Amino acid sequence: MTAPSSALPTGRTLLPADSTGPIEGSHKVYVVGSRPDLRVPVREIPQAATRQPDGTLRPNQPLRVYDTSGPYSDPDAVIDLSRGLPPLRLAWILGRGDTEEQPLPDGNGHRGDAALRFPAQRRPRRARAGRCVTQMHYARAGVITPEMEFVALRENIYADQAREAAARGAAPQHPGESFGAALPPAGITPEFVRAEVARGRAIIPCNVNHPELEPMIIGRNFLVKINANIGNSAIVSSIADEVGKMVWATRWGADTVMDLSTGRNIRETREWILRNSPVPVGTVPIYEALERAGGRPEDLSWELFREVLIEQAEQGVDYVTLHAGVLLRYIPLTARRVTGIVSRGGSIMARWCLAHHRENFLYEHWREICEIAAAYDVAFSIGDGLRPGSIADANDEAQFAELRTQGELTRIAWDHGVQVMNEGPGHIPLHLIRENMEKQLEWCGEAPFYTLGPLTTDIAPGYDHITSAIGAALIGWYGTAMLCYVTPKEHLGLPRREDVKAGVIAYKAAAHAADLAKGFPGVQVWDDAMSAARYEFRWRDQFNLSLDPPTAQAFHDETLPQEGMKEAHFCSMCGPKFCSMKITEEVRQYAAEHGYDEAEALERGLRERSEAFLKAAGGK
Amino acid sequence: MTAPSSALPTGRTLLPADSTGPIEGSHKVYVVGSRPDLRVPVREIPQAATRQPDGTLRPNQPLRVYDTSGPYSDPDAVIDLSRGLPPLRLAWILGRGDTEEQPLPDGNGHRGDAALRFPAQRRPRRARAGRCVTQMHYARAGVITPEMEFVALRENIYADQAREAAARGAAPQHPGESFGAALPPAGITPEFVRAEVARGRAIIPCNVNHPELEPMIIGRNFLVKINANIGNSAIVSSIADEVGKMVWATRWGADTVMDLSTGRNIRETREWILRNSPVPVGTVPIYEALERAGGRPEDLSWELFREVLIEQAEQGVDYVTLHAGVLLRYIPLTARRVTGIVSRGGSIMARWCLAHHRENFLYEHWREICEIAAAYDVAFSIGDGLRPGSIADANDEAQFAELRTQGELTRIAWDHGVQVMNEGPGHIPLHLIRENMEKQLEWCGEAPFYTLGPLTTDIAPGYDHITSAIGAALIGWYGTAMLCYVTPKEHLGLPRREDVKAGVIAYKAAAHAADLAKGFPGVQVWDDAMSAARYEFRWRDQFNLSLDPPTAQAFHDETLPQEGMKEAHFCSMCGPKFCSMKITEEVRQYAAEHGYDEAEALERGLRERSEAFLKAAGGK
Repeated sequence: MTAPSSALPTGRTLLPADSTGPIEGSHKVYVVGSRPDLRVPVREIPQAATRQPDGTLRPNQPLRVYDTSGPYSDPDAVIDLSRGLPPLRLAWILGRGDTEEQPLPDGNGHRGDAALRFPAQRRPRRARAGRCVTQMHYARAGVITPEMEFVALRENIYADQAREAAARGAAPQHPGESFGAALPPAGITPEFVRAEVARGRAIIPCNVNHPELEPMIIGRNFLVKINANIGNSAIVSSIADEVGKMVWATRWGADTVMDLSTGRNIRETREWILRNSPVPVGTVPIYEALERAGGRPEDLSWELFREVLIEQAEQGVDYVTLHAGVLLRYIPLTARRVTGIVSRGGSIMARWCLAHHRENFLYEHWREICEIAAAYDVAFSIGDGLRPGSIADANDEAQFAELRTQGELTRIAWDHGVQVMNEGPGHIPLHLIRENMEKQLEWCGEAPFYTLGPLTTDIAPGYDHITSAIGAALIGWYGTAMLCYVTPKEHLGLPRREDVKAGVIAYKAAAHAADLAKGFPGVQVWDDAMSAARYEFRWRDQFNLSLDPPTAQAFHDETLPQEGMKEAHFCSMCGPKFCSMKITEEVRQYAAEHGYDEAEALERGLRERSEAFLKAAGGK
Repeated sequence: MTAPSSALPTGRTLLPADSTGPIEGSHKVYVVGSRPDLRVPVREIPQAATRQPDGTLRPNQPLRVYDTSGPYSDPDAVIDLSRGLPPLRLAWILGRGDTEEQPLPDGNGHRGDAALRFPAQRRPRRARAGRCVTQMHYARAGVITPEMEFVALRENIYADQAREAAARGAAPQHPGESFGAALPPAGITPEFVRAEVARGRAIIPCNVNHPELEPMIIGRNFLVKINANIGNSAIVSSIADEVGKMVWATRWGADTVMDLSTGRNIRETREWILRNSPVPVGTVPIYEALERAGGRPEDLSWELFREVLIEQAEQGVDYVTLHAGVLLRYIPLTARRVTGIVSRGGSIMARWCLAHHRENFLYEHWREICEIAAAYDVAFSIGDGLRPGSIADANDEAQFAELRTQGELTRIAWDHGVQVMNEGPGHIPLHLIRENMEKQLEWCGEAPFYTLGPLTTDIAPGYDHITSAIGAALIGWYGTAMLCYVTPKEHLGLPRREDVKAGVIAYKAAAHAADLAKGFPGVQVWDDAMSAARYEFRWRDQFNLSLDPPTAQAFHDETLPQEGMKEAHFCSMCGPKFCSMKITEEVRQYAAEHGYDEAEALERGLRERSEAFLKAAGGK
């Protein structure tokens, strides 16, 4: 158990050694765009050469993969947690000339322990009067922002490599089945990004007050993204722990993090996370509002919530979960459920509605909320407060009633130029997952869907990263844009560092499986590189190409620790004498030597080929 | 690294303490069938009572779940590994009067270290001349064997409980989507089992020489099963390790085990496993044949293989993988693959075919193989020697050419009354999985499909229990009858005990997710019990109802170790003041007190209800 601690994260040294520096077997490179300060991070994994049958070496191209780890994996970056990351987008934001500085709030908005405050202060910005500063607004105006160019370059790395591989004679990739998505076969262009953001089918969460982030995009015509939830609770964990988890989660591939902290010092925790986060940060503002209401949902009010929302927007929160679809009339629909309302935000709003016999104040004040969000470019993640918390409750009337309202709220937000995604479930058996995606696309106008799993059975606490990765892969394939991870501790306890990693890796695998299935351009190059390395017994390359290089190597070394075994043309599963890959190699060589030309074999029909082959074989 | 060891498993004490005795929070009970020696094991999980709003207690029925753990979890059973399990089916086999004892083979068939031999000997049995002793043969003759009755009772436990729950007023379960399967909505009867076995759509692997096993059934109209591979390799692990893994794998839910041992002492290892295994044991006989051929595939012959097959049949192997579909003319189709032939058996046969310029001897001698199998009731698992070993190679011509031949071989085996299943891939992206199932059903006459995963991406070594659980759940839903597990060590090393458990639990979760989705009768009662316990904060019940009770409890206790916290009406994720489940409870109570009757709400359309509700609320 981690004892509550007031230890502050100051300086790189407070991060565990395995949280910084290059990810094993790779180094960070930057793809520079149309301006020198537009530098897109990419993780490059060099590969050993292939020894060909004639003994000569054929070099293998390094594989470039999407990189969410921020400056922490860059050995040239100076990390000081108490100063935060460099504000790389600041020049772009200033250059647009549509925002202005605000005075620092009283006491800098802090209410928690003074000793826990983040030291550096930057004045918040907001839109000049009458201006909308959202990426959606720019996109509709036909402007390709640096953010859009950034994400286009970032999303396009696989397509570029697949084109290069094809030019070298590689086999074509599986085309995928995209369920009506509009994936661009030739790769992602800045104009495509702009059009998708304008259409509301993708969002680039990037608050003007979070200039530290490296822009990323969430939409079903892009790579499937994953979110990692972090945040302390009233029971355990310190600010240092949570900042450490953010760095750790993004190192392994979290595309965004949500800070779900509760308890005292909620603002202080968030400030440390925001200033050090290279990825968008989401929150659930009603949690902080509830803290300020003394933990009593009935004491919440629109005024209190508004204050919290503005403060978070000024701090730099990139997207906010709003349970505005939990309407008074839907609440009784949950009464007969096996697990009632399991969303924290949903249950808070339900309690408030019943206590006051009034409609949800988030719903009632939706247009004001949109105006606030548009002034900072805070994106909405419209919550599913009535999501099912069990298989029994999946796809019920309460859930779908709220989803329709999420659609209604989405359209209003779009009227205000606010970027929107919709949250989805939850616990859903496999056969009911697709209905979720179809209804969301239809009712919410193709706004990005952002689901929690879904978990495909309730019976495996301790393994819900797996029960939910199954559902996540499936719904990602169907079109979900971002998958909120679930850790092994779900339903049982607060995730530790190792649980965060387990959740992130399971979800990276699920997201990649979904990308392959939907046919995202070029993404199979990663699998192909791994499989070629495997076939050629390039052990080090296999470790380095994996989602988790140190674990892959540790598992190998558990059986064959000797350094020489990294070169061995066999593995511990079969031993040296008895290896299918080795035998295949011999089969291939043999076939080549004896003229069993596969080109001929591939040209003809099966029967003809069989006859010809048998004849040729018999003639020897 | 486990050092090679000759330590023999003698006596219960050699099993780790956590391998025997009741599984935490449950006890074994037996459902007795139509004869006193037909005792079906069931694991019964008692539950605490529910405290109702008025303070009174309402008892909860214990949940009964399918149990594969054999006598090891029965505290009344006397376990002595050197004597083996009691031959519970012997009376049934003898009662049929169609088998006769054979002389013990020379040296009892042993070739390995004398010191490693299993001490107890039982003469092998085989069919009397002219008799077929397979369950398929009996089923076609209209006979319901004790084995069939056993599996009917075993498969029916969930339907029974769902009926009881419905009688107590529980909500109906999701009906599922079964892709044309013929699931009996009212539950499984012995006659249904007989009909499915006669039709070839299900198999009951149960060699007459493995009387120790508790019968189980594999077919798409039954619960999805999982197999765990064990077996030592030339590099590591002892007989004691492998017997221990078998007990461990079945404890956590393996429905069958495959002994994939290679190296010396292959027969001795198998004997220890068979005599102590409560589940069917499968093998790949070509591995042992290759050992006897000095590791040189070209030195294999039909005569050698036949000898091995008969010896394994006499030992009691319940099903054998035969790579009889790897035909000479298909081999060149693999030459251009990214990963060639990855199946060990497939590559051995390919090597042999090319070396001799002859057709696969398993294919050529298929009818003789069928005759041998029919004399012992050895079931076939027709191997997919050309399965894809990478996403790139999925669903290619080589793979599907072999699948067609698997269908041809299936029909011939059925002519001989031999029970058959077909092995399937491998590495398949999500969107290409369904085609595998559809072609297998069509080409192989609905014989049970038995797949390895499939893995849905290649990029996550160290996590392939997850990448493959995703594919396994999906193909299980589509109709695959048994899922061969993949452990976290896949592609990297030999699985240890903890890897075996990780693989088994991941696959139990996947299989259950598939059962839910296909609508297997009653199976949702398990999820419903878990979710009710969760909603009511019955923490101990949550642990006990999970697939892995000790892990669930350990994860909970990591954050809240105090004993009192097992009764707490909150958890560590949110803390005591801020709990959605707790708030929901209040919402529900509040709604009940104030007359927001959900019955009324559920009766009317959404809009009317909303109006009525708002009116009622406004009137207060």
